[in-house]
Amino acid sequence: MISITEALQLIDQHAAQLPPQQVAALTAIGCLLAEEVASDVDSPPHDKAMMDGYAVVAADLASGVAELEVIEEITAGNMPTKAVARSQAARIMTGAPIPSGADAVVMIEQTQPLENNRVRIEATGIATGKNIMPKASSLACGVTVLPSGKRLRALEVGVLAEVGRSEVSVVPRPRVAVLSTGDELVDVTEKPGPGRIRNSNGPMLLAQIAAAGGVAENLGIARDVREELTEKIACGLEADILVLSGGVSAGVLDLVPSVLAQQQVTQVFHKVHLKPGKPIWFGKRDVDGKTTLVFGLPGNPVGSLVCFELFVRRAIGILAGLTSNELQSAEVTLAETFTHRGDRPTMFPARWADATQQTALPLAWKGSADLAAMASADLLLQFRAGDAEYRAGDRLAGLIL
Amino acid sequence: MISITEALQLIDQHAAQLPPQQVAALTAIGCLLAEEVASDVDSPPHDKAMMDGYAVVAADLASGVAELEVIEEITAGNMPTKAVARSQAARIMTGAPIPSGADAVVMIEQTQPLENNRVRIEATGIATGKNIMPKASSLACGVTVLPSGKRLRALEVGVLAEVGRSEVSVVPRPRVAVLSTGDELVDVTEKPGPGRIRNSNGPMLLAQIAAAGGVAENLGIARDVREELTEKIACGLEADILVLSGGVSAGVLDLVPSVLAQQQVTQVFHKVHLKPGKPIWFGKRDVDGKTTLVFGLPGNPVGSLVCFELFVRRAIGILAGLTSNELQSAEVTLAETFTHRGDRPTMFPARWADATQQTALPLAWKGSADLAAMASADLLLQFRAGDAEYRAGDRLAGLIL
Repeated sequence: MISITEALQLIDQHAAQLPPQQVAALTAIGCLLAEEVASDVDSPPHDKAMMDGYAVVAADLASGVAELEVIEEITAGNMPTKAVARSQAARIMTGAPIPSGADAVVMIEQTQPLENNRVRIEATGIATGKNIMPKASSLACGVTVLPSGKRLRALEVGVLAEVGRSEVSVVPRPRVAVLSTGDELVDVTEKPGPGRIRNSNGPMLLAQIAAAGGVAENLGIARDVREELTEKIACGLEADILVLSGGVSAGVLDLVPSVLAQQQVTQVFHKVHLKPGKPIWFGKRDVDGKTTLVFGLPGNPVGSLVCFELFVRRAIGILAGLTSNELQSAEVTLAETFTHRGDRPTMFPARWADATQQTALPLAWKGSADLAAMASADLLLQFRAGDAEYRAGDRLAGLIL
Repeated sequence: MISITEALQLIDQHAAQLPPQQVAALTAIGCLLAEEVASDVDSPPHDKAMMDGYAVVAADLASGVAELEVIEEITAGNMPTKAVARSQAARIMTGAPIPSGADAVVMIEQTQPLENNRVRIEATGIATGKNIMPKASSLACGVTVLPSGKRLRALEVGVLAEVGRSEVSVVPRPRVAVLSTGDELVDVTEKPGPGRIRNSNGPMLLAQIAAAGGVAENLGIARDVREELTEKIACGLEADILVLSGGVSAGVLDLVPSVLAQQQVTQVFHKVHLKPGKPIWFGKRDVDGKTTLVFGLPGNPVGSLVCFELFVRRAIGILAGLTSNELQSAEVTLAETFTHRGDRPTMFPARWADATQQTALPLAWKGSADLAAMASADLLLQFRAGDAEYRAGDRLAGLIL
């Protein structure tokens, strides 16, 4: 059985960044840019007023006071029609083009309109260029504004809009299909009969995929019947990643590995030295240039949750071209003495024991099927393999849920 | 002019949590639960096998070795039909119900099938209850599984599914409408003519809203014409928050405040002691039991970005019932000497100067219209009002973008 580290290395070896795709910029937040973006405009397109006020000749205000003739009013979106000469000014709005002749803008608060199209200005320190943003000073046509490989934020969506790009080439979000398997499963909307339980892993995985940056596709529940599994797995292999929930432990009805083999999915590993989550299965299909990664997650809900966060999240990050897509990790202090028994490295649910999230307390947790108790978990504490008593104050690694 | 702190206090006073709404659980990640959720099932619904293996009478394995008669095979989703007596065992799959008479499960790896429906077991430490999860031990019918007020994660979506809830009552995400105003604006898909610029704030705000947990609604661009502004603002007032981009500085064409007043939007504040972002406007409309908050953001892109992150993000958080929805803040070290001039507290774009994100370097930044330069910003550094020289090593507050 391989270790968690070995499993992660195998995922790193078999997963690769997806080819670029043209998408709407607004849907691409968090994605890596896959092209270099250059400006198609000068910004500002002209010398531009930074304030509402008056465009003036700076030399007229050398003394700090002046009365000037107002020759026109320039609003944002309109071009000046007259040049400003000495002793003249043009009323101007923020963003509007500076008229020729003018070389400074005085803010409106320092001015007082007079009769007969005149204005009185009291303002010191009005030098050439004051409150003017020169043409192309922010951005010149042809200049690169965003380098390839940059991760897009709202800010970059604004820059893309400025240079006319509502669509852009990015490394797309991986499409991740989820198929829950097992005769015992009924849909969340049904009341389970004798021996049946609701499919809680399916919806949880769909939510985990979205939170991890993937695009989730729901394939529902497949019975433990070869034909049904074959059909739904074939459908899931159209995605970038297929996540199977259940069907990978050693039971005689676990048809999944055989159906996968039939569909040219090659096993990379099966079983990891980890609790919960030991039965995890990972494989890959490469057919006609299309690659699909396949994860078989344990049917028990907490094992499924843990394996997703450790392994599937990693794969989603690699396909999306991200250097890190992991849960946030933290070194935390154990709040109380705790005895951990187990032959495998364990991810144990815990909650914060203090408001500053420095100390943690393992939950009273009944094992990998106990999802309800997990809901009060804030993090997973990592215990090493082997029985050991941990003391209050011991430092442990944790993954924040 | 009020301070940033005073502005935030006024927002806190006028914003209130939205009334609960029934939504699909899968769309509610990050939302606050607005009801107490109880289980409608026992989980597990029966004593259940935790392993693939054999259900046995523990006493038969007192010596550590036994050969037992295999009386049936129980798969998950099927009920046992026979009781297990001494010297008997039932083949059982993970998750399947424990047959009456059996009180432990031996894992498959410790067993060896023999001829004539018999099995040889070598296993020590098989006590009553081994590898069995008792009925209702995870969850008993009627017990609360999720308290009202809990913030939903993928984990909680799993728990909700387990108790039959695909829909749930939550504090919904606020609907935030965006209207860009200004005669100088053209849509991102157009090439701007003389005196025109593309509307970069609109798309950036839509992206910021989604990132801050709101549901963005795009109202496009309104010209500086009373009828058009009136119609589009009326439409925007149907949302929980209306964000206007531009139209709130002191220009004579700034019709926006007057149109808002006409539509019963009352001003709460106008102008904040902040750079960039001074002209920000905030108001509220309460008509027929419907409340809408209205923000008028500066038309310059960096002022718009900063005001959104400081003020609109805060309002979105309050409406969504979140205790915090702020950008992540951090104390950072200035990497180089820097002179800051200005009469207002300033949010200054900066980038990380080291890989561990401890030290930061202010950008060569040309002011609030310089969005392109902002794209290399990792954070906003906060400088106090007044001219001052900051030294390498000085500690400053930063907001991570």
